[in-house]
Amino acid sequence: MRHFTSVHDVQDLNQLLKEAFELKKDPFKYEHLGKHKTICLLFFNSSLRTRLSSQKAAKNLGMEPIVFNINDEGWKIETEFGVVMDGDKTEHIKEAAGVIGRYADIIGVRAFPGLKDRTYDYSEPIIKQFIQYSGAPVVSLESATRHPLQSFADVITIEEFKKKERPKVVLSWAPHPKALPQSVPNSFAEWVIAAGYEVVITHPKGYELDPSFTKGATIEYDQNKAFEGADFIYGKNWSSYADYGKILNTDRSWTISAEKMKLTNDAKFMHCLPVRRNMIVTDEVIDSPNSIVLDEAENRTYSAQTVFKKILENLK
Amino acid sequence: MRHFTSVHDVQDLNQLLKEAFELKKDPFKYEHLGKHKTICLLFFNSSLRTRLSSQKAAKNLGMEPIVFNINDEGWKIETEFGVVMDGDKTEHIKEAAGVIGRYADIIGVRAFPGLKDRTYDYSEPIIKQFIQYSGAPVVSLESATRHPLQSFADVITIEEFKKKERPKVVLSWAPHPKALPQSVPNSFAEWVIAAGYEVVITHPKGYELDPSFTKGATIEYDQNKAFEGADFIYGKNWSSYADYGKILNTDRSWTISAEKMKLTNDAKFMHCLPVRRNMIVTDEVIDSPNSIVLDEAENRTYSAQTVFKKILENLK
Amino acid sequence: MRHFTSVHDVQDLNQLLKEAFELKKDPFKYEHLGKHKTICLLFFNSSLRTRLSSQKAAKNLGMEPIVFNINDEGWKIETEFGVVMDGDKTEHIKEAAGVIGRYADIIGVRAFPGLKDRTYDYSEPIIKQFIQYSGAPVVSLESATRHPLQSFADVITIEEFKKKERPKVVLSWAPHPKALPQSVPNSFAEWVIAAGYEVVITHPKGYELDPSFTKGATIEYDQNKAFEGADFIYGKNWSSYADYGKILNTDRSWTISAEKMKLTNDAKFMHCLPVRRNMIVTDEVIDSPNSIVLDEAENRTYSAQTVFKKILENLK
Repeated sequence: MRHFTSVHDVQDLNQLLKEAFELKKDPFKYEHLGKHKTICLLFFNSSLRTRLSSQKAAKNLGMEPIVFNINDEGWKIETEFGVVMDGDKTEHIKEAAGVIGRYADIIGVRAFPGLKDRTYDYSEPIIKQFIQYSGAPVVSLESATRHPLQSFADVITIEEFKKKERPKVVLSWAPHPKALPQSVPNSFAEWVIAAGYEVVITHPKGYELDPSFTKGATIEYDQNKAFEGADFIYGKNWSSYADYGKILNTDRSWTISAEKMKLTNDAKFMHCLPVRRNMIVTDEVIDSPNSIVLDEAENRTYSAQTVFKKILENLK
Repeated sequence: MRHFTSVHDVQDLNQLLKEAFELKKDPFKYEHLGKHKTICLLFFNSSLRTRLSSQKAAKNLGMEPIVFNINDEGWKIETEFGVVMDGDKTEHIKEAAGVIGRYADIIGVRAFPGLKDRTYDYSEPIIKQFIQYSGAPVVSLESATRHPLQSFADVITIEEFKKKERPKVVLSWAPHPKALPQSVPNSFAEWVIAAGYEVVITHPKGYELDPSFTKGATIEYDQNKAFEGADFIYGKNWSSYADYGKILNTDRSWTISAEKMKLTNDAKFMHCLPVRRNMIVTDEVIDSPNSIVLDEAENRTYSAQTVFKKILENLK
Repeated sequence: MRHFTSVHDVQDLNQLLKEAFELKKDPFKYEHLGKHKTICLLFFNSSLRTRLSSQKAAKNLGMEPIVFNINDEGWKIETEFGVVMDGDKTEHIKEAAGVIGRYADIIGVRAFPGLKDRTYDYSEPIIKQFIQYSGAPVVSLESATRHPLQSFADVITIEEFKKKERPKVVLSWAPHPKALPQSVPNSFAEWVIAAGYEVVITHPKGYELDPSFTKGATIEYDQNKAFEGADFIYGKNWSSYADYGKILNTDRSWTISAEKMKLTNDAKFMHCLPVRRNMIVTDEVIDSPNSIVLDEAENRTYSAQTVFKKILENLK
């Protein structure tokens, strides 16, 4: 593996899962692999799980992680080309990427979308420019359109908790007061479809995701109907893709409640976190024994560690 | 030792002091103890000494410290229960604690009081919720009501400099332009009383501390009288406990001056730092050979290291 | 070497260069040297290259780097003496330096000038107070008047790319929308003069640097004439030294363009970065094969590592 930005960078998902479980069992087995290697974990945005789990995953492999909050600690970055830089941006992404590539053996990048210009966001300018100009392998720590380390951890978690070979996995939209990216649902859809599960996505009209991510899933506008017989309910808010970045609806009848969970096949409740309690999901559901949100978070360490390991092995 | 939030978590203070002096002599003796262990040092507030000394103490024990400034780097945390999270708080403390507990073997937490609601602050919601929901041992890096690693370092320092078995230790209020927590004086009082010293606390009327921390100490409203025969003067400002969080007085006649120090038994001057010069203490006193403020700061490494060591030994 | 704040701390520049090239070839050769040593990298200002390269250099030597962004993570620092600290500054530099010196074996400090009071800035109060009060060796990570680790990396880079024994090195002012310090050009001038190169400095009238830094260089007000026969063009903006901290000129005819580069002896283009494209230099020049800005950035690791190594060797 050279770069890791989506499930399309994975050659064999079953093999990747196998390696993840091996690392979870014995996290320090490959500690020699990262010796004298540096990973720069670069954040354009806030992070808790991604930051801590990536730092830990790197250390488990013997790598030196350098966490860098570029907006606070570094310079404001220009991402447009050909401009006269006479405004408030001090450094061009071409130099930032090129320089960091001289210090780091691997670069992890988190860069959220602006949610204003869909074409721009969906062209993934930041992660792509890091790939183009850094000369180093690049790992997405959540980009404008995907959050692949989260989705990989989600699949690891489903594999741990599933009771049948091909569980029914339901991705359910839920209300939220602020406009959120589509990266988690896009990416989750891609991964659970690739894993071969039965995938149903439910949301109010107008919240359809980019169909290139959801091919193979069933779209169901009736949340109750979607929940019937579900083995896993993955709650998540996202803003509209069609009416890009807009909140069309904050209807609390979509909040995932104990009553709705009763429609399922004793489903596990999942969420990538952070989660707004009593908006996305009621306290009763997230505090129930069927909630596996902390297990997902824990598996972030192993999804990151597996990906870093594959890249280190490929570094030569 | 499982958690460390006050002197009440210490079984045998003399033994703890002995171990601190052993570590100061040979800081790397227990470097094997923290191998493959991670400590998350979580800051809701600013820090210089606590941050640097804890990071160093962890490294001396072979642990990997992850420093996390949660407000700047992570998400705004909701600490109330049962609320509909539709405001500016993105993540609930229950998830934050639970998640961090999946990554860290020990969690250090700094969370200052709001100084608005005494009952709330003195219930120590943040540190208690980390203890309840993280599943990991928790070390206070200064909570709403106590700063135990500072107080332990202060006792180490007094032990190093005392010339008699039971020195007279005077905690003196001094003026300050902003409202400060009572955590340092509360905690200092608890520890020096537990250490068996003669303890006198002096402050203007209205600045009485919560009596549960000062039982065993003499309260003396006349600063000059309090200073007579003192072996150690510990300067510190705090806001009122009775009229909670208020500044009742900024009387510079309470500033610790060379003239006042002459009343003492050639006392050492102590302060936890940061200190506002010429408000709390004059330049003349803090720059004098009797000032041991840097020794206190240095001992922060060993108070933290001793506590981390006890917790690591108890981890299994 | 005890402290490192300018080229004057270097005993033998040729020897230092030799050691830099040795480290670049074998970065982990002296990994034992920093064992159990801590370096505090203290930032009063933003940083990308200095931060990442110093952290990496420290690790290459086996040292533990503690990065500390003092304004965001610590307390606001008072640098004046004798004041009553009743304003917004919480900690005096005397204590900050003294305390950090109790935790760190080496202290790196970045502190930019205010560009308001030339006498104050040129007296280098912050770096000097760290030297005076910390008790530890101090390395400048860019001070009010110099950026010696950058300049040392620049000389390393010139040595790598030069085609003749004594190349012609031209430092050229270029326009910029904000007032910048003189530290990079001051320091660059000092180092390339010390290296024995032919040094020409070109800028509009009014931008003369402090002559104590430029003794031995030719000042040429005609940029085109300066460029003739140059082997290296070092682009950089700075604010006026005479009319201190002021922008006298943003004349884009001084922007370094392909046309101007044609006047040179196929010169390499250099800049310390971050650089504002199409203000300082056109895209065409910085994107050309003659641009060696990333090589300069890469050599920051080895300039820092060489200096840290010399200081570690001197620690005993």
